[in-house]
Amino acid sequence: MRSLSVPSSPVRDLLALTSRPEVISFAGGLPAPELFDLDGLRAAADRALTRRTLQYAPTEGDADLREQVAARLTARGLPTRPDELLITTGSQQALTLVVTALLEPGSVVAVEEPTYLAALQCFHLAGARVVAVPGDERGIDPVALAEVVERDRPELLYLVPTFANPTGRTLDAERRAEVLRVAERSGLRVLEDDPYSELRYRGDAVPALAASSDLVLHLGTFSKIGAPGLRVGWLRAPEELMPALVVTKQAADLHTSAFDQAVVADYLRESDLDAHVRRLCATYRERRDALVGALAAVLPEGAVRTDPDGGMFVWVRLPGEVDAAVVLRRALERDVAFVPGASFYAGEPDRATMRLSFTTGAPEVIREGVRRLGEVL
Amino acid sequence: MRSLSVPSSPVRDLLALTSRPEVISFAGGLPAPELFDLDGLRAAADRALTRRTLQYAPTEGDADLREQVAARLTARGLPTRPDELLITTGSQQALTLVVTALLEPGSVVAVEEPTYLAALQCFHLAGARVVAVPGDERGIDPVALAEVVERDRPELLYLVPTFANPTGRTLDAERRAEVLRVAERSGLRVLEDDPYSELRYRGDAVPALAASSDLVLHLGTFSKIGAPGLRVGWLRAPEELMPALVVTKQAADLHTSAFDQAVVADYLRESDLDAHVRRLCATYRERRDALVGALAAVLPEGAVRTDPDGGMFVWVRLPGEVDAAVVLRRALERDVAFVPGASFYAGEPDRATMRLSFTTGAPEVIREGVRRLGEVL
Repeated sequence: MRSLSVPSSPVRDLLALTSRPEVISFAGGLPAPELFDLDGLRAAADRALTRRTLQYAPTEGDADLREQVAARLTARGLPTRPDELLITTGSQQALTLVVTALLEPGSVVAVEEPTYLAALQCFHLAGARVVAVPGDERGIDPVALAEVVERDRPELLYLVPTFANPTGRTLDAERRAEVLRVAERSGLRVLEDDPYSELRYRGDAVPALAASSDLVLHLGTFSKIGAPGLRVGWLRAPEELMPALVVTKQAADLHTSAFDQAVVADYLRESDLDAHVRRLCATYRERRDALVGALAAVLPEGAVRTDPDGGMFVWVRLPGEVDAAVVLRRALERDVAFVPGASFYAGEPDRATMRLSFTTGAPEVIREGVRRLGEVL
Repeated sequence: MRSLSVPSSPVRDLLALTSRPEVISFAGGLPAPELFDLDGLRAAADRALTRRTLQYAPTEGDADLREQVAARLTARGLPTRPDELLITTGSQQALTLVVTALLEPGSVVAVEEPTYLAALQCFHLAGARVVAVPGDERGIDPVALAEVVERDRPELLYLVPTFANPTGRTLDAERRAEVLRVAERSGLRVLEDDPYSELRYRGDAVPALAASSDLVLHLGTFSKIGAPGLRVGWLRAPEELMPALVVTKQAADLHTSAFDQAVVADYLRESDLDAHVRRLCATYRERRDALVGALAAVLPEGAVRTDPDGGMFVWVRLPGEVDAAVVLRRALERDVAFVPGASFYAGEPDRATMRLSFTTGAPEVIREGVRRLGEVL
């Protein structure tokens, strides 16, 4: 029987920190609830509730939703047919389905270091061996990746190439081509986790990796552009993998909520999601600027922080041998929270790192939070 | 890398049979859509859509829903605290979570023969070895179970003890006590899958196995009493298993749709679900009677069929060496469908068996379907 001593996820434990109302939290990765399009979603829900959407439904997903998502991906530069899509219960489920269908205990997964911790946990739960590949401000290092491929023979490369969690970094176009050359050379499958790319606050879009190679599985979600409570995500996968993924999805939950799928399909069709995303971007841009600007004034000499073009996160490295977990404990005494970066490492963690999310606070709240943080630093 | 030749589930392939409108289908396991409480659910959905229910939510489930479900289980004779419950994306997910958290490749699972085929598939996907235990009209045979426990040392016993899928049989109270004695003697955990027990058309309720032993994990669902499209189920588990189950659930999909959970919580609180279940039972009782009565007139001498006290299924064994798959092919030519029983066997299948669901047809449609079936038989 599998050990029951599995530790609970750091994300989960940290969510507890943010529940005290007096805490200004940079710890979450939540969209701003005041920006949810409540009226648009209410109208969609009202139209979507029918006898059909209350009944069992196909495992692959609602036909209308697959069409809407395929059209949106295609319009954004990733040509997609509805039958290349599997609708999932959030993109977290897509991640688990890919892991279950493609990996087995002992399989090797390569990841950029640092990376999304729920992905790391997913790989560990599957008994996979995770190998860290270093990166820099331009994203994962293709030369280091080639060495890892040579040495460790990974079966999967997991990346958040655009506005990465936790660093906010984007893999640039040149590096994308190099990463794909390495992948193509060895037949390495790539899992492109893409929850944030619509949240761009400056610069031009970089094409999805999946647009250039059939080795790429692409994960998307309604959680960041719409609402996460509905748990609607999607997986765009090569045709030959789809049967195994569908069987795995069927065992997982038969299908994603037919009602929620219909709500999202209706919303994508009837609402102006582009206008909504522009509103999100305008607000989040201000909040990013507030965080990045305020940090500049309080971070000690020698600290490094990212200034992301989009997404939800700023990544900070404090100078010297500071442990950010100790900083967090003291920060919580001053009612401010963030996530120590160590949890995002597959290999030896850099304990002087911190992840700060800027999406849920108004600029003045962000500035007050950073002021409190400055007292600790 | 895991083989991608996993066969698609028989349930799935068979659902395709039922889509031609001229087919009278006994093949499904669907609730009758015309009985969905559309108005009640619409009112609940309207109240449930808020900024809170559009946001990320706790993995364990909505606090209000856990309270409502705990109260309902307690009122039905299974004393339950909210913190003993994990809300899942349908009870199919609960099944997969239990399998993932408790079993590993090579683990042995004992099942009543025949049993729910999606459970069998779940166990096979996990690499478990499934051992069949025979039963009769009173349910699984405790003596045969004791022999299997002695010989194969299973880690889990999976049962649908009330109105079983596919047979419609119920494990009687005396046998329940015997099964639990066998389990307690060897520390065998029992997974009690209980989707149907509220759909009782005659006789008195039999207490849930989970009411008598801490070795029992209990699965329930809103799918059969409410609506399956919402994908809301629950797992009642012993305290010491909960941490591992929650971590597994988090990796699976972070949490079940917060919106759907709020819809169901509101519905359980504000609607008269007992009255709705009485309406379901009145209609399904008529449909069961129509099927059982009509079959009596067309089944050949020597055929055996169940006459279930509740649930959704009648189980037939044809006399002699008939293959029900051949019967199905001929039945489809006459626009009538059912599920050949062979898929429900973990061991050597009895190919002369058939599962017929009576929930989705009006009595006159059921009688016409059985008449067509009679032409084939």
